[in-house]
Amino acid sequence: MTTTPPLSLDMRLETVLAGLERGDTAALARAISLVENQREGFEQLLSELYRKIGKRNAQRIGITGPPGAGKSTLTEQLVRAYRERGLKVGVIAVDPTSPFTGGALLGDRIRMESVSLDPGVFIRSMATRGAQGGLATTTEEVADVLEAFGFDRILIETVGVGQTELDVAATAETTVLVLVPESGDGIQTLKAGVMEIAELYVINKSDRPGADKLRQEIEVMLGIRKGNAFVNVRPHHGPAAAKGGAGRRGETAAKTDWEAPVLTTVASKGEGISELIAALERHHEFLVTSGMLAERRKQRLATRTRAVVNRAIRQWVWDETRAEDLVNKRLDEVAAGTRSPYDVAAEVLQQVRNGK
Amino acid sequence: MTTTPPLSLDMRLETVLAGLERGDTAALARAISLVENQREGFEQLLSELYRKIGKRNAQRIGITGPPGAGKSTLTEQLVRAYRERGLKVGVIAVDPTSPFTGGALLGDRIRMESVSLDPGVFIRSMATRGAQGGLATTTEEVADVLEAFGFDRILIETVGVGQTELDVAATAETTVLVLVPESGDGIQTLKAGVMEIAELYVINKSDRPGADKLRQEIEVMLGIRKGNAFVNVRPHHGPAAAKGGAGRRGETAAKTDWEAPVLTTVASKGEGISELIAALERHHEFLVTSGMLAERRKQRLATRTRAVVNRAIRQWVWDETRAEDLVNKRLDEVAAGTRSPYDVAAEVLQQVRNGK
Repeated sequence: MTTTPPLSLDMRLETVLAGLERGDTAALARAISLVENQREGFEQLLSELYRKIGKRNAQRIGITGPPGAGKSTLTEQLVRAYRERGLKVGVIAVDPTSPFTGGALLGDRIRMESVSLDPGVFIRSMATRGAQGGLATTTEEVADVLEAFGFDRILIETVGVGQTELDVAATAETTVLVLVPESGDGIQTLKAGVMEIAELYVINKSDRPGADKLRQEIEVMLGIRKGNAFVNVRPHHGPAAAKGGAGRRGETAAKTDWEAPVLTTVASKGEGISELIAALERHHEFLVTSGMLAERRKQRLATRTRAVVNRAIRQWVWDETRAEDLVNKRLDEVAAGTRSPYDVAAEVLQQVRNGK
Repeated sequence: MTTTPPLSLDMRLETVLAGLERGDTAALARAISLVENQREGFEQLLSELYRKIGKRNAQRIGITGPPGAGKSTLTEQLVRAYRERGLKVGVIAVDPTSPFTGGALLGDRIRMESVSLDPGVFIRSMATRGAQGGLATTTEEVADVLEAFGFDRILIETVGVGQTELDVAATAETTVLVLVPESGDGIQTLKAGVMEIAELYVINKSDRPGADKLRQEIEVMLGIRKGNAFVNVRPHHGPAAAKGGAGRRGETAAKTDWEAPVLTTVASKGEGISELIAALERHHEFLVTSGMLAERRKQRLATRTRAVVNRAIRQWVWDETRAEDLVNKRLDEVAAGTRSPYDVAAEVLQQVRNGK
């Protein structure tokens, strides 16, 4: 048995890049793993890909909504419909992390089986936990990899309707909020954070009772929004971690004429899917012609750059300075109450500033 | 008119601390604002309070669940029941942020009106957005302030069931998951991330059809958990941002005998509240006698210390180095695609390392 010497980092990155170039799915999976787990060289890889995508063409679509709304089924139908139109589709399914296994719960991903063997489709589950340094940033980076690989549509599906999921959905250019007739009850609460970020509303399982009532409720809400001075101002959804003005800057308050449509689907039967696809294309066109697409991408890049800076600094502090040692040495005193976490932070900061 | 010279930072902190000491609610509100908005001196204040609370006595209870489950009504009933028992109660209501106003949507907080005038009760809404440096950390810090003020029970209510909300709920020692009979549909999805963190399950609005079925479903799930080697190991829910081993360390895998009860309530009628209070007390006692409380607090402190260090470093980088200038100077090139966010991050890091 002979042993091959391990490849250098540069050579390994070369291999991955060449693989992506020739459309090798194994290289794609490897590149995504590199990025998701922030392995050595992932920033170099992303930097290379960044230059490659340059002028982006893929449409990024966020699909969000409460659990049980049928998002996976809807996503699967969208994938099929796009494939019928000859478009290649990448799917990022952001799953709640199981606290037991630490990994993503693949749950209803299995339902996507029907499309997962198609080489024009790539589905990747991402765990909400473990994406150190911000799930939104990592999701965007994985989307970059998919885009560089040549996917025309990138669907970002989030389960759950919390802040992290909103941040993730907001990395897309078009956000679809999927509800079901039964959502009516919770709509008042949902409204607060979730209702307002969507550019398209879908009432799925619309063959169940209550669909019309929900549609009216949403339309009333949208009507109120129209009367609002802030109508259709896309809020800035950068990760809270991206300090340094990012979160406070916000997007130019361009008023627009986009009227968010309320569509109905029965995803399990494929009903309403073409209409949804058409609405998605319409919104993309609207973003392009209004100039909002360019504006939105620019804002996202600013947010992302700050998030990437924060991550790089954090990695440096914990991996290359003596911060970890110092913190570990102090934890007993913190637990005993003789030293506060703030005392420790001040000490670490002092050490870092002194370049240790 | 004479003008008084502005008080020095130290004197202002002294004033707040003295106010807290004598139970002045205005001082409490001010202290919380300082902490929530990370105003100058907030870390000094927390450091002082930290020494004061030392051996903590307040029980921190997380109340989470999907929108529309009646968490606010349940919280209000818990507050009343605790007050009848002579206990002082602080409530932190974590609200989804409105992208339009940037502030917390107070929505159904208004329902808590009946208890909000009681001086033994303090209710604070916190917006999910704007808590720079991690909502979980800020929530814990606000809870510290409440504890130092002398509240016996601290209820932390989160709306939404996403990752951020789970992280927040996990800062409590006892987490209650509130569901409604209609939740059955979504339970398979919820299960993934949310179901597993609870130590108590409440089926609210249990006078509606489906309550029994849901209870059975939960019990089946708990039965499966019991057969699992990881049963009742409380997962480590530190903010993903707290790099440096925190998220990977996890809690000691102590197996325990706590069997999570499934309770039924009709919060609007006050039904089942005493039973819930009793179960909460039982769980607290269990945590104390099993030694898990000490262990859990120690782990939380380690996570928190790392998060506080990260926040301090981030503030230093953006406020005291020239990082912001450099990033702003580079953003156009990033937008043009001639420079990647990673190039900029490397440049900033280099600058910070060189102590600029």
